[in-house]
Amino acid sequence: MSFGIDDIRRARETIASKIVETPLLESPFLNRMLNCRLFVKAENLQVTGAFKFRGALNKISSLPEEQRKNGILAFSSGNHGHAVAAAASLMGCPAVIVLPNTTAAIKVENCRWWGAETIFYDATKVDRETFAKEIAESRGLTVVPPFDDELVMAGQGTVGLEIHEQLDVLNVSPDLLVSNCSGGGLSSGVTEAFKHFYPSAEVVLVEPAGGEKMSRSLESGKPERNFNLGPTILDGINGPLAGTKTLEVLLRHGVGCTSINEDEALAGMFAAFKFLKLVIEPGGAASLAAILAKKIDVTGKTVVILASGGNVDPAVFTRALQLAEQ
Amino acid sequence: MSFGIDDIRRARETIASKIVETPLLESPFLNRMLNCRLFVKAENLQVTGAFKFRGALNKISSLPEEQRKNGILAFSSGNHGHAVAAAASLMGCPAVIVLPNTTAAIKVENCRWWGAETIFYDATKVDRETFAKEIAESRGLTVVPPFDDELVMAGQGTVGLEIHEQLDVLNVSPDLLVSNCSGGGLSSGVTEAFKHFYPSAEVVLVEPAGGEKMSRSLESGKPERNFNLGPTILDGINGPLAGTKTLEVLLRHGVGCTSINEDEALAGMFAAFKFLKLVIEPGGAASLAAILAKKIDVTGKTVVILASGGNVDPAVFTRALQLAEQ
Repeated sequence: MSFGIDDIRRARETIASKIVETPLLESPFLNRMLNCRLFVKAENLQVTGAFKFRGALNKISSLPEEQRKNGILAFSSGNHGHAVAAAASLMGCPAVIVLPNTTAAIKVENCRWWGAETIFYDATKVDRETFAKEIAESRGLTVVPPFDDELVMAGQGTVGLEIHEQLDVLNVSPDLLVSNCSGGGLSSGVTEAFKHFYPSAEVVLVEPAGGEKMSRSLESGKPERNFNLGPTILDGINGPLAGTKTLEVLLRHGVGCTSINEDEALAGMFAAFKFLKLVIEPGGAASLAAILAKKIDVTGKTVVILASGGNVDPAVFTRALQLAEQ
Repeated sequence: MSFGIDDIRRARETIASKIVETPLLESPFLNRMLNCRLFVKAENLQVTGAFKFRGALNKISSLPEEQRKNGILAFSSGNHGHAVAAAASLMGCPAVIVLPNTTAAIKVENCRWWGAETIFYDATKVDRETFAKEIAESRGLTVVPPFDDELVMAGQGTVGLEIHEQLDVLNVSPDLLVSNCSGGGLSSGVTEAFKHFYPSAEVVLVEPAGGEKMSRSLESGKPERNFNLGPTILDGINGPLAGTKTLEVLLRHGVGCTSINEDEALAGMFAAFKFLKLVIEPGGAASLAAILAKKIDVTGKTVVILASGGNVDPAVFTRALQLAEQ
């Protein structure tokens, strides 16, 4: 595979005018508390509240006019579905989002708000990929994959290009990138960009404890499944499968792995509330959580972490705020 | 008085390398809901979580070396005290923060964290200005005023310069600026910059209902007192007095006024949580609250609002989140 910095640069040209160049934030309190210099890339401030918009927009923008006119399809009840609905709307392209019939009303509304058609399936009876592919084929729709696609990965990789430019202004060179990881779209894209500019820097991925599919994939050398799919507030990073293309990139760069549990994620969200004034969802707070929980040694280092999304229910955010009372 | 755009440009040169250039954010949901194009200047992401850092840093940076060495003093338990402590620390300058003996522990800690000395007074027995001035004179300290000072106003005005540059990139010209207002430091500085670039745009200030001192000052032509100083979550915009210099600027530009109550502020905070992924304190959410509560007609307009700070207790933020259940 030839995925590299040029794909990411092309993606940047394609999407730059339609995305938010999110700030790279720092907290003097966190720096002193953690004994490091910590930069937080605030992708929760991206359109649709998550980095996913970048990849979806790059993919849809890169489709031939004809395919765009026929329409696109995505299967995801989370940030990817919302991002695809938004990107399709901006590109004037019909969109179908395939959702489990148990999807929360707010997530259905988000897709419909952007004008997308929503189609439901019974997750206990049908396989979502098979179901979605049948609809796509019968209606001539192009599937926008959530992560295992070079155009999607390149879109997410633009986060890394921005980080490089933002650090350059400060004349800072990082030692470590910590990235939240599920299928690997964000982490592969950003790692590719990061390692291009900082070849000797370290990269560590953060997964949900009990659902470390990418960690196991990196060991076995092939994409592994996550069998721990029960309901969790870490749903944003608890997808069923590691990607093939994303794994290839991550293997090539020799990344490390760690994991966090729900309580650690809530502590990360609380720290983001208190010190960064950001609303981050549990999966989006995984990198910060891992550092706060001392899963990664950051002493004396210059560290970049990704705050990948901010779509969190008030009830879950309230749980994070209750940590203040402890 | 000669306060103008050049003061603000000089302030920018002085402080640019030490402040966060905060993002100007937009939410497609808010835009459609409010039938306008709304830009939110996220000063909650500023160092110390509020715009106050800009003015404090500009003032302290502009002092003669000798005065800086002797040290500075501020009286404020809120964002101004925290900002002065931080700016003094960055400038290597001793700082004394004078606080009422009822100040919450977290606010005392914030000042001390930056290395400032804290001195307490009994607000039921002594006047804070008299008390602070006595300490300043006896110890040779320079007072950093919270708002009624051209260097402080110029520092806050840099928010307006950034807004102009950020709108220029988008090729957008605004119709309306809505600014939270207490003593007038932020609103006078930003209005001065805003009116320089957009002379025909409107400016509206937002004050706490029952504490509309600037509105009354604009009517009477002299700085009026706020007699409604009871405890309120809107403390950030509920100071005791309008400024003389700030009033002069605001009078010159013919600004309008409105007000919001606590519940409306909480609704603004909830909207910022949901649509912008930002943590905003009640007073910092006043502009957004006023628009959501239909106090200002924004239909069809391009509007800039200031999210001026994010220092809010978890318990108060939880109250905002509870609005989701209604």
